[in-house]
Amino acid sequence: MSLLTVGTVAFDAIETPFGKTDKIIGGSATYGSLAASYFTDQVKLVAVVGDDFPKADIRLLESHGIDTEGLQIKAGEKSFFWSGKYHIDMNSRDTLVTELNVLESFDPVIPDSYQGVEYLMLGNLSPQVQKAVIERLDQKPKLIMMDTMNFWMDIAMKELKETIALVDVLSINDAEARQLSGEYSLVKAAKKIMEMGPKTLIIKKGENGALLFNGDSVFFAPALPLEEVFDPTGAGDTFAGGFIGYLAKTDDTSFNNMKKAVIYGSALASFAVEKFGTERIIKISDDEMEDRIHRFIDLVQLEGKF
Amino acid sequence: MSLLTVGTVAFDAIETPFGKTDKIIGGSATYGSLAASYFTDQVKLVAVVGDDFPKADIRLLESHGIDTEGLQIKAGEKSFFWSGKYHIDMNSRDTLVTELNVLESFDPVIPDSYQGVEYLMLGNLSPQVQKAVIERLDQKPKLIMMDTMNFWMDIAMKELKETIALVDVLSINDAEARQLSGEYSLVKAAKKIMEMGPKTLIIKKGENGALLFNGDSVFFAPALPLEEVFDPTGAGDTFAGGFIGYLAKTDDTSFNNMKKAVIYGSALASFAVEKFGTERIIKISDDEMEDRIHRFIDLVQLEGKF
Repeated sequence: MSLLTVGTVAFDAIETPFGKTDKIIGGSATYGSLAASYFTDQVKLVAVVGDDFPKADIRLLESHGIDTEGLQIKAGEKSFFWSGKYHIDMNSRDTLVTELNVLESFDPVIPDSYQGVEYLMLGNLSPQVQKAVIERLDQKPKLIMMDTMNFWMDIAMKELKETIALVDVLSINDAEARQLSGEYSLVKAAKKIMEMGPKTLIIKKGENGALLFNGDSVFFAPALPLEEVFDPTGAGDTFAGGFIGYLAKTDDTSFNNMKKAVIYGSALASFAVEKFGTERIIKISDDEMEDRIHRFIDLVQLEGKF
Repeated sequence: MSLLTVGTVAFDAIETPFGKTDKIIGGSATYGSLAASYFTDQVKLVAVVGDDFPKADIRLLESHGIDTEGLQIKAGEKSFFWSGKYHIDMNSRDTLVTELNVLESFDPVIPDSYQGVEYLMLGNLSPQVQKAVIERLDQKPKLIMMDTMNFWMDIAMKELKETIALVDVLSINDAEARQLSGEYSLVKAAKKIMEMGPKTLIIKKGENGALLFNGDSVFFAPALPLEEVFDPTGAGDTFAGGFIGYLAKTDDTSFNNMKKAVIYGSALASFAVEKFGTERIIKISDDEMEDRIHRFIDLVQLEGKF
């Protein structure tokens, strides 16, 4: 099935305890579409960059079968740039630079060839832009998934809730779930958030895995215990892209299939953090993917009866 | 199989956002032996209290089939007392009062009738006392499990490592694993700690579950997402008691059986936090236990092939 990923395509400059990068390709739609490309060759992208954005990076996306017709290139403007520095625990970071540039006036245009798309992934962007995308699709997709950030809860809670009301799956981290719901218990938070609209909620807990809530059902996917987390940038977007990519591939939005999708998303994210930026997720072999999935399954596998 | 639990039997006074208690029964050996009593009727206890300790609380332990011959009652002395206040997140707490009392001069005596015990649980105590218990057993048990705390890492690291070298299973939390090993990555921490002696390491992560390491194998047991954590006091000791109780019941120390033991320990701990102190774990019905175990299994259960 076809999948549209909307989000940022950007430059990141990253500093971790292990080293630092110059400007490299980043952004929620970059990670999301690359991750999804492992599951379907019908990934379409809507985003905006300036004309400073390297053609080679666009070709990289295209080489993964990603349709870039919806990637706007603004002449004379600069691409969105974010720079951050991770602390030693890799769970917290300081933002050093945020230059919105082209993102300030981003008006998402849906190419005619994208209409009728079956799955929609709304990567982190302003909730108004995310909502505009939904409104500009002639046909409601089978499933809309949305990612967001505490930033929008701080400055645009009303608009955020309006957009959340329109989606099927919301993906946020534990601190964001608490902020959005006002509840400390994640079980209570999940109930409140699902009352806001989404039938399904994914709460990401970083190195502590992810919870998938759907009505009264809950599934837990562990994170793989890793020797080293090299760079967590984009892990959440990679997770989301892997999740919805797997749903689009299988065209099955049942709870049981979403469980598998969470494992695939977690597996993709476990690759993402092994190297800087997109370096690791642009070349995952089939064997590596299969091996990784089995490690996730083995991690919680019990043999025999209780 | 028979199981000896050594640790504290004490008074706790607990304050949480949900309420507070007067002095109630607590201590690592109390929680550990009560949890283990669900699996074997051959639980033996070594601990010390003052003569201020209520006979009714000792009878409570005995009513669970726990042999209290090894419980020393010191005439004219007072029982160990701890008082603490939990923060709203329930993951951190302030110690308000610590009165060592009888614990200051605790010299563990092993009754003759305990000799030949097959499983040994060393609850949190000074590492010197833990070591003395091992030395005073005529026969090495089939399996020795040990729990400890950051407190001993701060003041008695050398003695702690000497005791750790003698045990088969060490159970500590994530912060303690990092402190003990000097490694942030839990995978690296686990390797270093297993080189100190224990073949098996359990890293407890509270509401984020527990990791079981054994050689190159790793197993992850989630914690059950709960609506409310009422009082986390004793959850770790309850986990340990459930874990080793299940091993003693099945008399199987294979890695696969330890995985199941981690699930049983986690299930017991999930009961423990539902009420103050030992209130919940003194009366768990068979049906409740079975239901809880199934919730743990369902939480990570996937149907069908990948």
